[in-house]
This record gives sequence, structure tokens and C-alpha cells, in this order.
Amino acid sequence: MKRLAILGSTGSIGQSTLSIVEQFPDRFSVAALAAGRNLDQAYSQTLRWRPRIVSLATEELAGRLAARLRQAGVTGIEAVHGSAGTVACATLPEADFVVSAIVGVAGLEATHAAILAGKPVGLANKECMVAAGEILTDAARRCSVPILPIDSEHNAVHQCLRVGVHREVKTIWLTASGGPFRNLPLEEFAAITPEQALKHPTWVMGRRITIDSATMLNKGLEVIEACRLFNVEPDQVRVTVHPQSTVHSLVEYIDGSILAQISVTDMRLPILYALAFPERPASSLTFDLAALRHLEFEQPDLQRFPCLRLAFEAAKKGGAHCIALNAADEVAVDAFLDRRIPFMGIPRTIEKVLASTPEAHPATIAEVLAADRDARQRAGLALE
Amino acid sequence: MKRLAILGSTGSIGQSTLSIVEQFPDRFSVAALAAGRNLDQAYSQTLRWRPRIVSLATEELAGRLAARLRQAGVTGIEAVHGSAGTVACATLPEADFVVSAIVGVAGLEATHAAILAGKPVGLANKECMVAAGEILTDAARRCSVPILPIDSEHNAVHQCLRVGVHREVKTIWLTASGGPFRNLPLEEFAAITPEQALKHPTWVMGRRITIDSATMLNKGLEVIEACRLFNVEPDQVRVTVHPQSTVHSLVEYIDGSILAQISVTDMRLPILYALAFPERPASSLTFDLAALRHLEFEQPDLQRFPCLRLAFEAAKKGGAHCIALNAADEVAVDAFLDRRIPFMGIPRTIEKVLASTPEAHPATIAEVLAADRDARQRAGLALE
Repeated sequence: MKRLAILGSTGSIGQSTLSIVEQFPDRFSVAALAAGRNLDQAYSQTLRWRPRIVSLATEELAGRLAARLRQAGVTGIEAVHGSAGTVACATLPEADFVVSAIVGVAGLEATHAAILAGKPVGLANKECMVAAGEILTDAARRCSVPILPIDSEHNAVHQCLRVGVHREVKTIWLTASGGPFRNLPLEEFAAITPEQALKHPTWVMGRRITIDSATMLNKGLEVIEACRLFNVEPDQVRVTVHPQSTVHSLVEYIDGSILAQISVTDMRLPILYALAFPERPASSLTFDLAALRHLEFEQPDLQRFPCLRLAFEAAKKGGAHCIALNAADEVAVDAFLDRRIPFMGIPRTIEKVLASTPEAHPATIAEVLAADRDARQRAGLALE
Repeated sequence: MKRLAILGSTGSIGQSTLSIVEQFPDRFSVAALAAGRNLDQAYSQTLRWRPRIVSLATEELAGRLAARLRQAGVTGIEAVHGSAGTVACATLPEADFVVSAIVGVAGLEATHAAILAGKPVGLANKECMVAAGEILTDAARRCSVPILPIDSEHNAVHQCLRVGVHREVKTIWLTASGGPFRNLPLEEFAAITPEQALKHPTWVMGRRITIDSATMLNKGLEVIEACRLFNVEPDQVRVTVHPQSTVHSLVEYIDGSILAQISVTDMRLPILYALAFPERPASSLTFDLAALRHLEFEQPDLQRFPCLRLAFEAAKKGGAHCIALNAADEVAVDAFLDRRIPFMGIPRTIEKVLASTPEAHPATIAEVLAADRDARQRAGLALE
């Protein structure tokens, strides 16, 4: 029985994780839940899963949760709050495995704490790896803690990498759906609205990640994440546009063999893989290969998707540039969704922020968070 | 340094194996060569590779080889002959690895002897596994000897199987090019000539295997081979027609993940994989994923390709039926190439032979060879 601490339990990955726990009651249980501001959902998750500890964003929310639990006659569950509360969930002695699914750098401190506490981590939060990949992977190495990627691409890569050893890896190929604007003429990019950009062809996801898919910045963050997770250089990672989203990624070996992972587009599959690793439980998430007719692959167009080019540049510089890429994008995407900047203003903002970013390699989580705040400030000023 | 015994050195796989040795002189050397009747090629291979021992089909050919070597002033190379000579090559104490690439059941005894002598085997001869798979895999288990498949499909499966354990495997999907008649209307199958059937769309191979590709009996033999090599039931093996021959096979796991292996269509790649296993040396056999545009997969049409249906039936019965399938096909293909029977006479002959085959499970190589001879005799009589 693996006892899970789920950071970001009310988000999309958190909910999918709980649906996996539901399906595999003999394998998994819930030891800790860290949520944000969604008190109602956190309460019903708490009632259903009876963790040892639950964290909410604020003291007031935690107090209201505790009161509701008392009213319901539920005892023995501790309600905590804030980043200290999230860290308490991540380091709970009873937890065997931590699912890191808090969006953005907000999940960074707790993920780091989980690793330092020796907990294997299922990582759904790519910003953690982009902003502090070296710190996290160094800590994981020192503590002999596995980090199992939960996003579909890196999970696919993790599987394909089992067919060889590190020095035999030539190229990691990340597949990209290409987003909603794969075939849109370049001259129409200026007029893209938030409504258009929020329609993703294959995956249903949060708002920022959906916009990041439309700009392909998301794929750029994944390139950086792959470099960190799998200890490869940026020129060992390539992107191929694969509109069917059926092949989740590929690994090319030095002998010429390429391994690809194929499955349904359902996040429960990589979650189950990470939670159960190294075992593979039987699931109902089967892909009908007999129904597979054809697969397409094409090179990404860096003119339409300058964010991808910017991400490769940041990947090569590392450190503060990766932090700035992520921070500037978050600020720019918010501005785009608020209709304050046009769609192509997102890459322009990022480019300006990267140009003013010093070459630096933050060595602590505090330094990472400071570099993140600094980049956000510069991004705010760089908005058009 | 791995010292190789190459059984079938003058055939297509044998020559490709030697070209791998040529490319990796620091990894591989040649300890033994077993050829058939091609004296000139056996002689030049012997001069080039200086094995300890060379076997030819007959005493007379071995004598001529020895004489030529004496004339050329080459000493210390033993010339042997016949099946005893092949077995001597397969069990040579100095050899670390045996490449089993003699076509047909002729390679069976030597492959068995190699396993009993504790030599890891690279297996290119699928008839061995079809006719005597249980005997060979039992021996390999008892002697802790790995059998590494050299044909592209099973080699792909071997790679994809490294991503899980045996009980996690749901289905092995073998890809098939579909051969030259994939899109031919059924009513035109009656008039297919040997010339048409010998034109394979993607692979250049020997005559029998090319006809077997056109009838898809070849894929049926591979289904049986997969059952034996990977210890799975016939209903765990499926065939998908993939005309690009780019995905060499796939393995579907119980959690819903499918792993696929992609590479150039060049036999040197699976040969190198088998020879170097568990290492993966760098090779120039790279596949340009950027040039990959699209891949198609379709279900095989068992009306046009009854040989595939017959093979699944034989796989389920096992033992003598698998031997009869292979033997009857060899006789029928010869008759088709000699224009004695039409193309669809091949499956009709096999079906008749299978119908008259007793349920039996030969337990020794001698019994296998006797069942093979018996089936060939019945096939000769069953020809139209």
C-alpha cells in the first residue's frame, strides 16, 4: 500500500490522481491533501479520503475546514495552511509518495522539501523543473529519490529510456499537438483572440497551459524539463509536431533504434505509471491499435511559434534565463487573457525579458524565487 | 571482444553480420564460419576473417577449401563438413556467440547444440523456433542462455519488452508490410505469377521468404516464433499491416501503454543489437525522424491472406501442426516458383496438410525432423 501526499489535490491532476486511488484501493491510500482556495472540494475530498492532514491556502480557510469537520463529527484530521502547510503535507512521515501537482513555482518549496525528506515524487508541475531543475535533481541524486514525470511526454520518455542506458541516448523527441494554430496563416496570428487560443484540439487543460500550447511555449518548457529530468543537453532534445497526440514521445538511441510510446490521451495513464512504478497495474485505459489508421509528424515552424525558439535559447543559457522564460510567459499570458496584449505580444514580452536577464545560476530555492519575482516585475514593465 | 560463430555465413544475414564485424573490429571477431555450397565466397570469407574452423556442405567442398587454403599458404584453419561440421562450428569452445542464420530446419540441430553448449544465440532462422521452439526455449532456460532475435520484428519486440515484465504484457503486435498484393483485388489472386510475387515492396530477401511475405505466411511463422520466444499465447499476438515498414513491431502493456520500435529497414540494425546486447554501440544506421511524414496501420484481410489464418490455427495446436505448417509451405512455395501450382495453391496445400496432421508434440530434435519429413511427403502428395 502506497500512502500518497497529493499537492494540488483540487486541480485537474489532483482529481485524476484521486480517481486512480479510487480504482486501486488495494494499492494506494491518501495520507495528505494540499489544496488552494477551493474549500468545498477540499472538504469533500477530505471526507472521502480521510487523510492525516489537509492544507489550504490561508489560515481562515483551514479554520473553516476544521470547523466543518468538527460539525460532521470527523476527528483526527489536522487542518494546516499556507506554504508551511503544503510543506507539512509533502514531508508527512506517513506518506510514501508525493504527487507534486501545484501549478507554477508555488509548488517548488514543497517539492524540494519532499525530496529532501526522501519521498519519491510524481512530478506534474513542469515549472518546478524549469525554474529549479538543477537544485531538484541534485537533491534527488543525493537523497536517492526517484522523480517520476507525470506529464504525458516525459512519462513516455521515461518509459522509452528503459530500453537503453544514458550514454546510448542520442535524441529525445518530444511530440507536440501543434495546438489550435498549427495551420493558421502567419498573417492571422496578430488577430488571435483568447477564445480562439483556449480551444485546444486534443487535451482539456487549465487556462495557462492551453495558451502555452497555442504559443508552443509549453513545449519549450518541456524541452527544458527534459534536459533537467533526463540529464541531457538542449541539442539532444527535439520537437516534432504530431497532431494526433497518439505517440506521446520518442527516444532515439545511438545505434539507430527509436522507441516510441503510444496510448490514449488520458492523464490517468501517466499518473498510474508514476504512482505504481516500477509495477504496471492493469487498467481500462486501453488504446485500440486496430483503430489506428495513420500518424503524422512534421517539423515545428519557428516563425509562427517564436516561443519555442526562445525556450531553446533559454535552455542553452540555463539558470536565470529558464526562470525568466517561465515567469515572463505567465505574466504575458495573463495580460493576453485580459486582452491587454495581442497573441504575438506573448513572445515579444518574453524576448524583452530574456534580453534583460543577467547570466546567473541561482543555487537555492530562495534565489530561484527572487529571480522569478524579478523577472515578473520586468515582464510587467515589458508588456506593450 | 566477442568471438562469433556464424552459421549461414554466405547467406544474406551472414554477409550482413560480417559487415557488422567489419565496422566494429574492436568488439567482434570471427571464430567459426558455416557455409553451404558457395565455395568461392566461403574461401574469400575465410581469407578475410581467419576463423579457427570453417564448415561446408560436403566433404568434397571442404577438401577443396582446405587445398585452396594450403595453396595460399594459410595454416591453422580447420575445414569440416556436413551437419557434424555445422555443429562443430556452433559448439567451438573459442566462440562466445552463435549467429544462427541457416535457412530452414537445416539449422535446427546446430542451434540446439549451441544452446546446450551454453552459447548465447542470435537467431535469424525463424523455422527453428516454429518447428522446435519449445525444445529450444526449454534448453535455453535450463542452460541460462539468451536467445536474441535477429529478424526485425522480434528484435523490435525484444526491445519493447524491456519496458515491463512478462505478466504486464497484454499483446505483441507484429507489423507486416502487407507484401506486394496488399491492395490487389481478391479475384486477381488466382493469376499471380512468381515474378509478381518476388517483388517485395520494402525488403530485399531470399526467394522463399519473399513469397512467404506475399502470402503473409511469413507473418504467420513470426506469430508462432513470437509465442515461443516470448512465452505468450497465440491470442496475445496480433498482426497489423503497416506498409511503411518503419515501425518494426509494438508491445501493448496491461496498463494501456504501447511501446513501438522504429528504425531504418536494414537488417544490420537488429544484427548489431543482438551481437552487442546488452550494449548499444553507435552506428550510422540512423533513421531521419524529421523526414517521417505519416504512418499507416490496418487490419490484415484474412480472405486474401488465408495463410495467416492457418498459421494462427497451427499456433493454437502447437507441436506437429507448426512443423507441418512450415514444411508444407516450403514444398508449396517451391511448386509455385516452378509454376506447378497457382499462388492460392500455397494456402490450399498447407490447409490439406494441416488437416491430415496428427496432434503430436515432438520432444526431441529427431522427432521434429521426422515430423518435418512426414509433412513434406504429405505436402508433395497434396499439391494440385
